[in-house]
Amino acid sequence: MKFETILLVIEVGGTLAFAMSGLLEAIRKRMDIVGVFSVAFVTAFGGGTLRDILLDRRPLFWIQNQEYLWLVIALALTAPLWVKTVRHRLMERAMEFADACGLGLFAISGASIASAAGMPPLVAVLMGVITAVFGGVLRDVLCNEIPKVYHDHRPYALCAVVGCSVFLGLDALGMASHLSMIAGICTATGSRLLAVVFGWRLPAWPAHMDRTG
Amino acid sequence: MKFETILLVIEVGGTLAFAMSGLLEAIRKRMDIVGVFSVAFVTAFGGGTLRDILLDRRPLFWIQNQEYLWLVIALALTAPLWVKTVRHRLMERAMEFADACGLGLFAISGASIASAAGMPPLVAVLMGVITAVFGGVLRDVLCNEIPKVYHDHRPYALCAVVGCSVFLGLDALGMASHLSMIAGICTATGSRLLAVVFGWRLPAWPAHMDRTG
Amino acid sequence: MKFETILLVIEVGGTLAFAMSGLLEAIRKRMDIVGVFSVAFVTAFGGGTLRDILLDRRPLFWIQNQEYLWLVIALALTAPLWVKTVRHRLMERAMEFADACGLGLFAISGASIASAAGMPPLVAVLMGVITAVFGGVLRDVLCNEIPKVYHDHRPYALCAVVGCSVFLGLDALGMASHLSMIAGICTATGSRLLAVVFGWRLPAWPAHMDRTG
Repeated sequence: MKFETILLVIEVGGTLAFAMSGLLEAIRKRMDIVGVFSVAFVTAFGGGTLRDILLDRRPLFWIQNQEYLWLVIALALTAPLWVKTVRHRLMERAMEFADACGLGLFAISGASIASAAGMPPLVAVLMGVITAVFGGVLRDVLCNEIPKVYHDHRPYALCAVVGCSVFLGLDALGMASHLSMIAGICTATGSRLLAVVFGWRLPAWPAHMDRTG
Repeated sequence: MKFETILLVIEVGGTLAFAMSGLLEAIRKRMDIVGVFSVAFVTAFGGGTLRDILLDRRPLFWIQNQEYLWLVIALALTAPLWVKTVRHRLMERAMEFADACGLGLFAISGASIASAAGMPPLVAVLMGVITAVFGGVLRDVLCNEIPKVYHDHRPYALCAVVGCSVFLGLDALGMASHLSMIAGICTATGSRLLAVVFGWRLPAWPAHMDRTG
Repeated sequence: MKFETILLVIEVGGTLAFAMSGLLEAIRKRMDIVGVFSVAFVTAFGGGTLRDILLDRRPLFWIQNQEYLWLVIALALTAPLWVKTVRHRLMERAMEFADACGLGLFAISGASIASAAGMPPLVAVLMGVITAVFGGVLRDVLCNEIPKVYHDHRPYALCAVVGCSVFLGLDALGMASHLSMIAGICTATGSRLLAVVFGWRLPAWPAHMDRTG
């Protein structure tokens, strides 16, 4: 009971954080209300949707849970009221925290769904990462940018990889399902928060590598 | 009988208008024959294809109706013969008219397919809009532009929303199916034509909103 | 037996060539390890994945054959060791050769899968082309470029079209399946190699066509 309430709170928080990151990026690109809603929606649900299409699962998450659709619609319609607030320093911190929570939860839930569908561990990890990360990739493609998660040299997808591996490892060792999920989520979210706080960066390629010739 | 003939004429006209908008954009980007065919094809069928993938419907529309494939191939191959004509003022008007007809027809048919598949109204409206609009989004992504429908501040997707809502509302009130469809199509197409003729624009966001900091 | 070994060698070679082209492009865009792996992976498997989604086939190729996933992971992790070598003239030639082999093999296997699924010839050709070409399209979209295969005016997708047509034509004439496949692969790969060696170019559109007004 209580465990599921916590998960729900994280899920709503994570979805809101993802949707907001799409919404802010769309506004930055001077999109209209249709673009803002679309990009927010795609950022929040694109990853889970791709996972379900790849695994051939229906109905899709946001079709079964229409509340999330309404949530994103409300978010887009009320944007002028709160966008200024969101840019304040404190609020930016809060959003990074919610985003890290979303990263952990979506990654582990994606891996757990794939694992339950009989996928081998490597594919389950990949599905977890896709669930957590692909919404942001689609956001950047629609905004005509190179996906941030691919080139900002900050650990994000890798935190999802580590978290999913911990979850699947503990699960394979026979740990109770909800305990291994919690461990996985805490690993992914925690490592992401550490990366943000301490400014961790992925190693750059050797200098000669990106020359065209 | 006669009703279905009219629908078919609109469908062919709308498909042609969508394909042509992709074709012209691809030529503007100096693509070769492969690019021109691909972008025309994706613009014409991308929306319906995404709807069918999301709803898990097969076979896809353009697989079942190969005539449309041949139509787009013929269009791409003969482009040099008529592209100059299309840019004339009168022809541009005709294309905007056909595009508005396509918008209405594809939106209502998308919503009707989703509704028949047991989707709730909100999802049915969304599927209608995706059917009508997503081909253009993909066209712009392939042409490396921010999707026009997201940032030109002109009512397009919203006309589809209104039309689908009218259709589903009248349907829920018990109106005969083909009458509610006609009403929905006329609403979407009509509102789009009015928007074009009178130059309606969506309200811009307050000025402070798109600043990055 | 021997025939299947040859096919396997071509498949591994083609997959490597596709993955490498994604990897090099990602490095050129200064992506990090996550981006490099993702783009390499999408380039290698995007085409076959889209084909399977359009035809509703599961499990996907790379889910059933995890070796390929590991191969791309190893490729991305070891990139710094060999990237410099790849840029040497001889190696570039080898990669173009492997890419042409991949083009032929993936096109014919895509067409053959579609044909076995009961698709009519035109759709089977299209599926063959999608299998061979769409990974590169996705690579360029993720790298925020107009797809190269759409605008470099060099025969690539068209070689796949010709190869698939030869394969399906001979198949329809009753030739043994593996012979018609070999003929198709040789046609696609051979015509691509000829195009590269002799610098064939697709005819440009008439000059007036890409003016905007």
